[in-house]
Amino acid sequence: MSESTCVFCKIIAGEIPALKVFEDDSTLAFVDIGPLAEGHLLVIPKEHYEVLQEMSPEAVAAVTRHLPRLGRAVMDAVSAEGYNVLQNNGRVSGQEVPHVHFHIIPRIASDGLGYRWNASKYEDGRDKEIQQRLIRALQA
Amino acid sequence: MSESTCVFCKIIAGEIPALKVFEDDSTLAFVDIGPLAEGHLLVIPKEHYEVLQEMSPEAVAAVTRHLPRLGRAVMDAVSAEGYNVLQNNGRVSGQEVPHVHFHIIPRIASDGLGYRWNASKYEDGRDKEIQQRLIRALQA
Repeated sequence: MSESTCVFCKIIAGEIPALKVFEDDSTLAFVDIGPLAEGHLLVIPKEHYEVLQEMSPEAVAAVTRHLPRLGRAVMDAVSAEGYNVLQNNGRVSGQEVPHVHFHIIPRIASDGLGYRWNASKYEDGRDKEIQQRLIRALQA
Repeated sequence: MSESTCVFCKIIAGEIPALKVFEDDSTLAFVDIGPLAEGHLLVIPKEHYEVLQEMSPEAVAAVTRHLPRLGRAVMDAVSAEGYNVLQNNGRVSGQEVPHVHFHIIPRIASDGLGYRWNASKYEDGRDKEIQQRLIRALQA
């Protein structure tokens, strides 16, 4: 399935150019043209899925199995010391293109990237309540 | 393989308690005790790997195949509108526990989470140079 208005589907179809780096039957990896750092890569399924939870386990695995090799290549290509893999689901999460994509963002010590990482703590018992909700949600 | 000093290996071995949500032969999912939002989940391989690029395609796939179902459960459990999947490699990337882990971070419109997302543009030709470096790195 592809969506006629999806920019990533158009890249897959060859209707929009992209700087491709890797491709197989299920997966395409290409250079992000609005990079957070040089070497920022996008890794996408060739089939159109808007968000991760639409994908089958097998469809996700077919894409993510390439992440170690692609992560290593990103580090090598730009002499990075590490990288973030980021995959956003839903506009609220920062997802801009509604076609599943994994960012591989190379990091060096001097970069200015980062998160607002405001970790909190659960109130007494609230953590177990959330755990039970998660377990119930998995059984649904 | 497990590492005697690794806190996640100790959780897997049952030596440190954790609020487990899902488990199979290769994967463990549990509630992050320092959550960015209620329902923040950690998904880890049971084998010890420090960073993603140490893992085989199959080892990664065995963990990531669960992400769609776990992502959906996180959304359901806390009525989130979306979620981020984040996996950091190397201290420079923000990785704090040197055992591969995927964060699933539920998001709602009113949360205060986010990134410094300072996208830039490549200078003319630099994008193709980076593409070629990536392709060469994949062939190495």
